[in-house]
Amino acid sequence: MDGAIVDVETVDLRFPTSRALDGSDAVNEAPDYSAAYVVLRTDGGLEGHGFTFTIGRGNELAVAAAEVIGRRARGWPVAELVADPGGFARHLQADSQLRWLGPAKGTIQLGLAAVVNAAWDLIGKAVGAPVWKVLADMSPRQLVDLVDWRYLRDTLTPEAALEMLEKQVPGREEREARLRAEGYPAYTTSAGWLGYDDDKLVRLCREAVATGWDAVKLKVGGDLADDVRRCALAREVLGPGRRLMIDANQNLGAADAVRWAEALAPSDIWWFEEPTSPDDVLAHAAIARAIAPIRVATGEHAHNAVMFKQFLAAGAMGVCQLDAARPGGVDEAVAVLLLAAAHDVPVCPHAGGVGLCELVQHLSMFDYVAVSGSREDRMIEYVDHLHEHFADPVRLRGPSYLPPTRPGYSAEILAESRAAYAFPGGSVWTG
Amino acid sequence: MDGAIVDVETVDLRFPTSRALDGSDAVNEAPDYSAAYVVLRTDGGLEGHGFTFTIGRGNELAVAAAEVIGRRARGWPVAELVADPGGFARHLQADSQLRWLGPAKGTIQLGLAAVVNAAWDLIGKAVGAPVWKVLADMSPRQLVDLVDWRYLRDTLTPEAALEMLEKQVPGREEREARLRAEGYPAYTTSAGWLGYDDDKLVRLCREAVATGWDAVKLKVGGDLADDVRRCALAREVLGPGRRLMIDANQNLGAADAVRWAEALAPSDIWWFEEPTSPDDVLAHAAIARAIAPIRVATGEHAHNAVMFKQFLAAGAMGVCQLDAARPGGVDEAVAVLLLAAAHDVPVCPHAGGVGLCELVQHLSMFDYVAVSGSREDRMIEYVDHLHEHFADPVRLRGPSYLPPTRPGYSAEILAESRAAYAFPGGSVWTG
Repeated sequence: MDGAIVDVETVDLRFPTSRALDGSDAVNEAPDYSAAYVVLRTDGGLEGHGFTFTIGRGNELAVAAAEVIGRRARGWPVAELVADPGGFARHLQADSQLRWLGPAKGTIQLGLAAVVNAAWDLIGKAVGAPVWKVLADMSPRQLVDLVDWRYLRDTLTPEAALEMLEKQVPGREEREARLRAEGYPAYTTSAGWLGYDDDKLVRLCREAVATGWDAVKLKVGGDLADDVRRCALAREVLGPGRRLMIDANQNLGAADAVRWAEALAPSDIWWFEEPTSPDDVLAHAAIARAIAPIRVATGEHAHNAVMFKQFLAAGAMGVCQLDAARPGGVDEAVAVLLLAAAHDVPVCPHAGGVGLCELVQHLSMFDYVAVSGSREDRMIEYVDHLHEHFADPVRLRGPSYLPPTRPGYSAEILAESRAAYAFPGGSVWTG
Repeated sequence: MDGAIVDVETVDLRFPTSRALDGSDAVNEAPDYSAAYVVLRTDGGLEGHGFTFTIGRGNELAVAAAEVIGRRARGWPVAELVADPGGFARHLQADSQLRWLGPAKGTIQLGLAAVVNAAWDLIGKAVGAPVWKVLADMSPRQLVDLVDWRYLRDTLTPEAALEMLEKQVPGREEREARLRAEGYPAYTTSAGWLGYDDDKLVRLCREAVATGWDAVKLKVGGDLADDVRRCALAREVLGPGRRLMIDANQNLGAADAVRWAEALAPSDIWWFEEPTSPDDVLAHAAIARAIAPIRVATGEHAHNAVMFKQFLAAGAMGVCQLDAARPGGVDEAVAVLLLAAAHDVPVCPHAGGVGLCELVQHLSMFDYVAVSGSREDRMIEYVDHLHEHFADPVRLRGPSYLPPTRPGYSAEILAESRAAYAFPGGSVWTG
């Protein structure tokens, strides 16, 4: 616990995923999955690794934001970070000039998330536990103190959150044991990228069923007739017992979103993800009312807890798809988990990309042990990309994530991968 | 009209305004007013100047964003820009990888605004008219085509906007003549920065009254007892006939905002600006219901038309404080003017900073001539800072802006100022 943060390194990492149209959808046509990567070094020798995720061009802006925010981390004592992570996160945000670039949104928020996530990796390593377990062992009071309550009190007070968390304390131990034995449910998005043709879609759905997946997500939102056909094909392979979700990646207006949901409903859709603009609480609420019992799922592009608060309060979010690196990292994620639990809305985090599966598993497992206390209707997204680059990659058994056991946030990318995929100088980009 | 955009220059300009606490408020403690400045050069010799505004540290991120977005402007023919400005703006945003950094918010949106504003300066110079007049001379169909309607149709359709604009065509000429004769009403914020003491506040309010101002705004949101005293002092100087507005710069939660409004109401407050988080549509709506007839004013931090759409539809915005450089520049500003007019909400643009007065006057004057057709309850913010650096600075007669007459968007900062205030190399920063 000795020492302080003495150096902050940033790296621009990009994986050329666009070459195979992995990750293609109605809006994100050809992403190169990228990480604005941060290493916090301490004079005691510990390193905290973290990142935010982007999809290629512009990753240098997120790196620059992480660097600017990271300057505020220098000199921070490790013991103080461990004792008061929320105070550290609030300190990073307290630059009144940088605030103008957001506030709390866009590139500056992505940079914040990278640094905060690296700090939590450092906390995990300092105390010798994976982050989900660090969080699950904190007292309700400590958890409440992670959150910046200023703009949240009209929906949830710290006192009400404390009471909610205290109710879950007696069951923590049993749920942790169950988690270690059974893992946490997952679903797969690998089958349904928009750039894949029907044959590949059917083949991948068959493989998903054979592998044991019981929930599959397809990308939609380009051509409706195509989507009707693709969903029917998927449902045929999945049979009646498995869940099928669709994701329009924000490509539709509100009226079209309702039209899509009605046309695809015969394929028995469980949720409709990102039907329209991620900023549009009121349109999501209207869509949710129109397409029930299909749930509206959103949140992967919600940039802070104030947005989640509104989506939840307005009934605009039937499934909460928290992202680990778009809001301000772990501390703000805890705020979102509390808000979702207070509204009894399941959190099914956004994952995929590069390393997002590695991060969000910690959030969902903590949620199960100490916040919502439930795995019902909850699943972590799983995409089978790029895990080989991680020092502590996700481990699945059947359609379940197994809890990480190594200290930290599972965020560390292998040194050789960091060298090879550094942009633009790494061998992958120069070769 | 010949030629194309061949070069995009970006400059990081910063003015050391924090040295005198000009511009201090409850959140922005010590701003250095800054511009992420863009020059679009054509092979025909025309230059378009534009910028976005920040308050110091982090301006380099907005500059970097403008540079990335600006690459997409290279090669664009001037004639095509003039014929279809909306098409150009949508092209700038159409990079599916860069979109991830927003979408349409934060730093990448600031960079977009800088480039789009420079393009409109170029349009004005190409056709030989100030931007307000360029807009006011466009047909309703051309104006509707400036807007990206994808996420707006649930509140306002292009057809309804067209009809609204057509109703104003017969009166355009008369209103333009009146605008040229009388100018456009303004109010002043120069008296009430939070860093000023009571004596300075009273002196500046007296000067404001003597100069002919009939509306004054004070910063509040730090200490309530201080605010009660400061507002009472200002009201005493202003007398009963002038308007007093307050601005908390987002510093309060919803319940505190209502408490503040109730405590300050005896000083007869016309609007309460930015009471809480600028993302919080639902809290603003609740505050608006609680504090009526005091109006809630917000919008200076609203980052795109989808946010304005919701604030207007929810009754959360009694005064629309459109900013010229936070949403995506002129084209998106036109969308906001149409939405506000459709909801019969007056637009009183955010200004001040560096150059915002110069820009927003064009938007308000166009609004009067061709969109809302009204100046009732409408005023442009005025702050007496930094106008000396502009090639075509605002001109006031009494408490009114006079319409710009020079071609372009009044955005051009003098070459000697650009050299002196360049950061970090200019003489102001090295001297």
